[in-house]
Amino acid sequence: MTYCVAVRVESGLVMASDSRTNAGVDHVATFRKMATFSASDRLLVLLSAGNLATTQSVLSLLQQRLHSQHENLNNVSSMYDAACLIGHTLREVTERDQSREGREAGVDFSCSFLLGGQIAGDTHRLYNIYPQGNFIEATDDTPYLQIGESKYGKPILDRVIEHHTELMEAAKCVLVSFDSTIRSNLSVGLPVDLMIHVSGRLQPALQYRFAEGDPYLVKLREAWSQGLRQLFSSIPDLPWGL
Amino acid sequence: MTYCVAVRVESGLVMASDSRTNAGVDHVATFRKMATFSASDRLLVLLSAGNLATTQSVLSLLQQRLHSQHENLNNVSSMYDAACLIGHTLREVTERDQSREGREAGVDFSCSFLLGGQIAGDTHRLYNIYPQGNFIEATDDTPYLQIGESKYGKPILDRVIEHHTELMEAAKCVLVSFDSTIRSNLSVGLPVDLMIHVSGRLQPALQYRFAEGDPYLVKLREAWSQGLRQLFSSIPDLPWGL
Repeated sequence: MTYCVAVRVESGLVMASDSRTNAGVDHVATFRKMATFSASDRLLVLLSAGNLATTQSVLSLLQQRLHSQHENLNNVSSMYDAACLIGHTLREVTERDQSREGREAGVDFSCSFLLGGQIAGDTHRLYNIYPQGNFIEATDDTPYLQIGESKYGKPILDRVIEHHTELMEAAKCVLVSFDSTIRSNLSVGLPVDLMIHVSGRLQPALQYRFAEGDPYLVKLREAWSQGLRQLFSSIPDLPWGL
Repeated sequence: MTYCVAVRVESGLVMASDSRTNAGVDHVATFRKMATFSASDRLLVLLSAGNLATTQSVLSLLQQRLHSQHENLNNVSSMYDAACLIGHTLREVTERDQSREGREAGVDFSCSFLLGGQIAGDTHRLYNIYPQGNFIEATDDTPYLQIGESKYGKPILDRVIEHHTELMEAAKCVLVSFDSTIRSNLSVGLPVDLMIHVSGRLQPALQYRFAEGDPYLVKLREAWSQGLRQLFSSIPDLPWGL
């Protein structure tokens, strides 16, 4: 599995992905699930979940076509068109690769993407591109999107993230959300790649990989874990004896 | 959906279930998912998740057969045999009810149960009975079991529950686990039924229904929510500026 989350607040974007892939439990590997496409007038970041062969093929085609005459991520004129193009490429790959034999063997060829970024002249935007190639956009009311193993880490996002949340606070919340997920699900693992985009700047304001033993992450996880246990002890006990 | 959790610690059992059922989003209803079978020498509590027609049929058959000559929940000699009998009854109902038409229409006839309790002469035990009728038992290493919408509420259980956790602390943790689930998933809702069994007593030590507006639950949810936000603010910020 995978866990990716992206937050779109007023002042920019926070995007993060884990890097564990597995086919069964005895074929576990590390792959970066964050891909960045940048040019002078644009910054596009993709997070991917699902079948690794499919996501890699989609990214390779998007990359390979960057300098073609046709529509590509370097020349699309809006984030909306970028989402369309990625959805289209995703359909192209799944149609090519998913055979009847594969489906009958229970192989799931599907994948999904979170696309965040900004193209000069427009604001920063965030999309969730479904396995079918269609997509939704994050709004002020729903400022975060997740793909992959999303449930363990959702409660803290629900409590903290709002449209006016500050970027660094959103980033901290995203890391706590990863901590809960990694603790509860073996198929999500470090390193975690984090990207922060400040609206208006067309280069990432921060790009960082949190590996096992990262001093800040260790501090965060300890403080959160210890704090949670303290908080749990401090909240009112049930009003009955046994 | 549904959320049920059961904890088996050294001193007894804590079991809890929500009471929302839904078929789609426009057919939402309230059903108790906790059923108690007790006699002078035994206490058996069942929590159920899945197809409501199936769970109700299984429970009706178990109830109806209580005074039959054959094996039933009043005369089985161990919790293990009770789990076998429930698994057997579950298979009987799904085999009877699941038609090809139903499967083709995408109806999921399956359900699962958590069975906790104690029969005189043995210790308290806890089982997860799968839709296929087979089952696993909770052990000292894995002291809690969940069925239904289990992921949102798992992180806090993972952090708090151990074999030596006290019963009332386990009960508080279970309620926090429900709070996270109810906040993040519309298909899980109040009232929550809670049962506490103290090992050796063959009557529930506590049975209580937490409805909307319950004073303790309101206090707990507020304290937890406010405490989480405070804790979140207090843990170290990322060590970089933007």
